[in-house]
Amino acid sequence: MRRIITLTTDFGAGSLYVAAVKGVILSVNPLAEIVDICHTIRPQDIAGAAIVVDEASRWFPEESLHVAVVDPGVGTPRRILYLESGKRHFVAPDNGLLSLVARRDPPRRVISVENPEFWLPELSSTFHGRDIMAPVAARISMGMPATRLGPTVDAIESLPSPDPVIESESITGWVIWVDHFGNLVTNIDRAAWTAIPRGRPWKLRCAGRDFQELVRTYGDRASGEVVALFGSTDRLELSVVNGSAAENLQVGVDAVVTVSW
Amino acid sequence: MRRIITLTTDFGAGSLYVAAVKGVILSVNPLAEIVDICHTIRPQDIAGAAIVVDEASRWFPEESLHVAVVDPGVGTPRRILYLESGKRHFVAPDNGLLSLVARRDPPRRVISVENPEFWLPELSSTFHGRDIMAPVAARISMGMPATRLGPTVDAIESLPSPDPVIESESITGWVIWVDHFGNLVTNIDRAAWTAIPRGRPWKLRCAGRDFQELVRTYGDRASGEVVALFGSTDRLELSVVNGSAAENLQVGVDAVVTVSW
Amino acid sequence: MRRIITLTTDFGAGSLYVAAVKGVILSVNPLAEIVDICHTIRPQDIAGAAIVVDEASRWFPEESLHVAVVDPGVGTPRRILYLESGKRHFVAPDNGLLSLVARRDPPRRVISVENPEFWLPELSSTFHGRDIMAPVAARISMGMPATRLGPTVDAIESLPSPDPVIESESITGWVIWVDHFGNLVTNIDRAAWTAIPRGRPWKLRCAGRDFQELVRTYGDRASGEVVALFGSTDRLELSVVNGSAAENLQVGVDAVVTVSW
Repeated sequence: MRRIITLTTDFGAGSLYVAAVKGVILSVNPLAEIVDICHTIRPQDIAGAAIVVDEASRWFPEESLHVAVVDPGVGTPRRILYLESGKRHFVAPDNGLLSLVARRDPPRRVISVENPEFWLPELSSTFHGRDIMAPVAARISMGMPATRLGPTVDAIESLPSPDPVIESESITGWVIWVDHFGNLVTNIDRAAWTAIPRGRPWKLRCAGRDFQELVRTYGDRASGEVVALFGSTDRLELSVVNGSAAENLQVGVDAVVTVSW
Repeated sequence: MRRIITLTTDFGAGSLYVAAVKGVILSVNPLAEIVDICHTIRPQDIAGAAIVVDEASRWFPEESLHVAVVDPGVGTPRRILYLESGKRHFVAPDNGLLSLVARRDPPRRVISVENPEFWLPELSSTFHGRDIMAPVAARISMGMPATRLGPTVDAIESLPSPDPVIESESITGWVIWVDHFGNLVTNIDRAAWTAIPRGRPWKLRCAGRDFQELVRTYGDRASGEVVALFGSTDRLELSVVNGSAAENLQVGVDAVVTVSW
Repeated sequence: MRRIITLTTDFGAGSLYVAAVKGVILSVNPLAEIVDICHTIRPQDIAGAAIVVDEASRWFPEESLHVAVVDPGVGTPRRILYLESGKRHFVAPDNGLLSLVARRDPPRRVISVENPEFWLPELSSTFHGRDIMAPVAARISMGMPATRLGPTVDAIESLPSPDPVIESESITGWVIWVDHFGNLVTNIDRAAWTAIPRGRPWKLRCAGRDFQELVRTYGDRASGEVVALFGSTDRLELSVVNGSAAENLQVGVDAVVTVSW
């Protein structure tokens, strides 16, 4: 059955480990349509992977299956999950990786992957992405009922809140990723922004720079200007027109952004 | 309908933005066959992308659709084009990105993508690759007539001439890209080279080095030698056998190359 | 015919040359299912590519065809091979690239690709990956009998032995690759390890560090500890829990590892 399986890992671009995962998936389901989302998650960066998986999966067809492997606890008793959240489907270790997905759409079904019937016959202690998650994802992509994977579970691991702190006269957020252009993307989304009373002047501060207006798009200002805007994922971001805000402001992930009014 | 859609962007390898574009394409046409050409175009490097798209697209099946997104003017009134040139098909912003394609094969049809019927319903100001170009490309890949996208246009944006300057006793060209091996690939193609009178001795100069003969392939000389040859894209290139000419000569894109006779 | 063709090259990620190879394959066989294994092999690193191709290909479906292009001798009289080894199928230059494949599974059939009938009509001297290997692989993927490619050959080029040296009271091996996590993967596999008399205490030494036990998986020790274990490819590796052994021990490929008892 042709079905999309996406991959997000910290294995590195061009990694043998990615190739092995693909080979195992295709050995079980030769018609799987594998799409790479990202293999350059920083090693063990579960929080970074959680953002990528949640954001990227929103754009895929509903029947897609998203496999995410950032798994520093591999071989220890941490669980592996199959999770359905809204219309999205995931396979990942239970280490917080799926917590943003679950915040966006409360899970309809969560299963602990425990039935070895669908795993590779020889199980390593260090690579469950290949030995468990790949063959299990491939089976699911072929229409196997998820209930065969193992028991239902009630609660999954969470990461610390990724939301900005909203107070009566301020929002305190931070940079959650830096894209290839050097745009500083924050955790302040349009919903958080509505905390500012309508029409009230505000001041945004990051890395010692102040901003008092938002622009609509990069091309609204001259090359080299530092601007604030709601960017491609509907989050507040700081950008340099035709340049890199990360270089210009000399900050990156976790840099604090405050809005006060 | 199974049809190849290639992608060339400056979004970065492993970017969420690439994933979103793929997800949107596959949501519209689940049978699209997406092939990544390059996502590591330098940010906003329209000229670099123009070369990559023109060169790469020559090798693909005729019915392929090539989507290229290097779009610093996103959200401003720049147009988005659907262009058929020879037997090749493209979707890209009208900022010069398709000008090398159009020089190689005069366009048979150019359409300004203006009909929002085929776009994502919520349009951002910063990501038309995802919101316009992806769904439009997917529709075209399913056989929708391009005339439904918008009006025909007569002229497209051009980049400064990418051709070497040919004079009575010299050719002045420059390096237009550096490959992963460090080969310095110039804009002097075999046609330009025929400006040298047959049998006349010539001298090629780049970065203070002189060359008076071409080799046929790298293995014709010993490791470490700097050689000049017509390389894999039929352009004059400077190479170091089993090494990097970029490192050895300490030059890169835009380095001047002169041939005199 | 839908059939998997994998690609391993030293062309670089996002290279035009990779795109050209894919375009040619898809022009011949539009139903080929191309899977990238690795394009970031170090330029001309035949030994590195030999490991990647042998390890990665083990995980793919049997009918897959693995194309590997690390080809510093392109355009010289080196042969191009089609090789069947066990249930695996390969196309690559005859420069040692397939020697690890052939050591693991003695080749059942080796053919020298010499019949230009299936090549691109215009043959370059510098890019046989595109002009010969891509169209030949595509034909094979469509079911063309390999015997049409050229004559059978008896012996292929080999690389120096990749095996550790086993003596009466020691094993001397070395690091053969470093993964994205900084794990130092050695050429000491489980078979070599059985040279240690059962129950005998042993000492492993690398980069001035001594190890006297193996762990089962990374999570068995605290973050930052340096450990030795059999990793994801069943080879002995040195790792730092949630860190990089390559950085911590300041060594890389070819670093010597001795085990004595």
